[in-house]
Amino acid sequence: MNSFEFFSPTKVIFGKGVEQRVGKEIKAWGGTRVLVHFGGGSVKRSGLLDRVEASLKEAGLYYVLLGGAQPNPHLALVHEGIQLCRKEKIDFILAVGGGSAMDSAKGIALGVPYDGEVWDFYDRKANPVTALPHCNIPTLAASGSETSDSSVITNEDGWLKKGYSTPFNRPKFTLMNPELLYTLPPYQTACGIVDIMMHTLDRYFSYGGVNEMTDSIAEALLRNVIHYGPICMEQPENFEARSEIMWAGSLSHNHLTGLGKPGDWSPHQLEHELGGKFDVAHGAGLAAIWGAWAYHVYKADVSRFVRYAQNVWGIQQGDATPEETAVKGIEATRNFFHSLGMPITVAEMLGRRMTDEEIEDLTIKATWYDRRTLGNLMVLDKDEIRKVYQESNVEKM
Amino acid sequence: MNSFEFFSPTKVIFGKGVEQRVGKEIKAWGGTRVLVHFGGGSVKRSGLLDRVEASLKEAGLYYVLLGGAQPNPHLALVHEGIQLCRKEKIDFILAVGGGSAMDSAKGIALGVPYDGEVWDFYDRKANPVTALPHCNIPTLAASGSETSDSSVITNEDGWLKKGYSTPFNRPKFTLMNPELLYTLPPYQTACGIVDIMMHTLDRYFSYGGVNEMTDSIAEALLRNVIHYGPICMEQPENFEARSEIMWAGSLSHNHLTGLGKPGDWSPHQLEHELGGKFDVAHGAGLAAIWGAWAYHVYKADVSRFVRYAQNVWGIQQGDATPEETAVKGIEATRNFFHSLGMPITVAEMLGRRMTDEEIEDLTIKATWYDRRTLGNLMVLDKDEIRKVYQESNVEKM
Repeated sequence: MNSFEFFSPTKVIFGKGVEQRVGKEIKAWGGTRVLVHFGGGSVKRSGLLDRVEASLKEAGLYYVLLGGAQPNPHLALVHEGIQLCRKEKIDFILAVGGGSAMDSAKGIALGVPYDGEVWDFYDRKANPVTALPHCNIPTLAASGSETSDSSVITNEDGWLKKGYSTPFNRPKFTLMNPELLYTLPPYQTACGIVDIMMHTLDRYFSYGGVNEMTDSIAEALLRNVIHYGPICMEQPENFEARSEIMWAGSLSHNHLTGLGKPGDWSPHQLEHELGGKFDVAHGAGLAAIWGAWAYHVYKADVSRFVRYAQNVWGIQQGDATPEETAVKGIEATRNFFHSLGMPITVAEMLGRRMTDEEIEDLTIKATWYDRRTLGNLMVLDKDEIRKVYQESNVEKM
Repeated sequence: MNSFEFFSPTKVIFGKGVEQRVGKEIKAWGGTRVLVHFGGGSVKRSGLLDRVEASLKEAGLYYVLLGGAQPNPHLALVHEGIQLCRKEKIDFILAVGGGSAMDSAKGIALGVPYDGEVWDFYDRKANPVTALPHCNIPTLAASGSETSDSSVITNEDGWLKKGYSTPFNRPKFTLMNPELLYTLPPYQTACGIVDIMMHTLDRYFSYGGVNEMTDSIAEALLRNVIHYGPICMEQPENFEARSEIMWAGSLSHNHLTGLGKPGDWSPHQLEHELGGKFDVAHGAGLAAIWGAWAYHVYKADVSRFVRYAQNVWGIQQGDATPEETAVKGIEATRNFFHSLGMPITVAEMLGRRMTDEEIEDLTIKATWYDRRTLGNLMVLDKDEIRKVYQESNVEKM
């Protein structure tokens, strides 16, 4: 087991109706002037925003609203939020929505007390020394942003999508009500299921350390998501299934499933470029690229993929070779993604093949213009990254 | 899934040599005047206390020492610590040792800013509104106190042993070095293994809610402890095995394995009276009472015990009845405890049978003098509690 640090201080308040406690909780944490940051109209249409505003008013809190958070949240909105917070002397940020609202809220929280350009943090040119406190009411089970230390923002200047992790990104608290997921369209539910699995898979498949406690929690989480995910698709108002997926979503990205060993994260990083360039949903992009990545790298650690096939999918090796069993695990994963209506190649996702120029653009951006390689299960340099994008550039695998 | 709150803000710093960061970390958390609370001579003999003092000096921190923490830590020592902290204007407490040092450190932290008698908290007569910040360097994998919100103290006046849980009991950080466990005697290692399992088992066997994510993490944790525990016994300096057990010990009691459902806790509460009365090691007491409790209650939820037998011990039901499979799981647990050198009845632990008067005394204390029943898988009133103590009062089961 490698040395590790684990710091997940976000207070989780989980259950029916918990969003109505938001005013009281923010007040208890010392907030007085609140930015309420949300996405599109669904938060308004569902009446959630009304309940939030009522709770804030009841607690005697001043607040301003900032909507407009979109999937692959844009830097321009973060800038707008920073300006608004400074003008309104905001001291607490509340995100209401999915990963996009929570991630741009984190960007705003980092940027308000910082004199420079907030993109500096995402671009590894500066480190924050403080941030505004923030909390959230998630309406999606996917990103894990409600308890995670990470935030992903897309810079419209060049469409670079970059994630940044810092303890300052940890929310003070999260109010998680699985009922808020009942109205999610199946496509968004499916994207969330893939994203949750990938937060654990990108930690599970890696090189450079072993932690059995971590691995066995990861496998338990994956089995749960595989079991309850389809129930959420078929029965959108099944409280138990939504609860299991929502809680798995947080545990999958609060780092519990990656302690004491490095993560690989290549699929996430390959997807970030797809998301930034084609503005596709994160979960769909992950489903589309994972298979090509897995086939490209599994021979670097066949035994790991065999363990995955056995412990997560219950595949018995029998007379099969380890390679065959490894492939069965990869296929089971892809078939599962397909059964949720997710694409399993990039060409399938886009409805067309990418051009060579597009692949070259993705490749160079994924290396941060030759400043990095990806992953560790198999280290992917520029040539290997290009190959994975090419291998995913087919209608069927 | 029931509503729940989860707040585990303790920063975990895990790995070789991490105890040498203690001065720097306390300083970063704002501490300036430190009480170093520890147990007996082993912390001195091993050189650990020297390293701690060197780190505190290097960080320029003032500190005073308070040794003497014993298993089943006594209220008198908590009182002594409170006086010392007030006299020395202590603003941060560091516990170095096992559950006893950490638990009495928590008691001291609660008591310093409180005008009344600190036992009020344990006796449910008052609630704390603040506490001194505290941290720890555990030298035992057992109590989980390094990240938990609980503290157990024995009041010498009547030998009442009571636990108290509050967010103020959460340490600011813990420095966990598995190497510090290398010199543990086998008996203490075994007691720790039982304690770790019981923190999860007392949550796992309960009535009133289901959380599959919680249950599957619990089962993964138990399987890990069953695998790595004996390795620690046979190879005391096996870093991987010590690491796995140490990390499982924290996760077993930071409440991750009990979220979204109630706990039962009868075995713990039955043991608390044994520990208070006979001053036996907590882990040994738990091993001694668990079998009698399990046989007494399993028919109230046979399917739960069947699941346990299957998922934790890998017992296949085959032609057996559910009851037979349930019993096999109980027997597997008791055999495992025995294999670690732990007693599996109270008479075996004490080397004699308890007298009727002793059983009556335990029974009345376990009910807090008729103020409570125990558990929920099967609610134990005074008569049932007496029966469990009687059923454990045999040399062999």
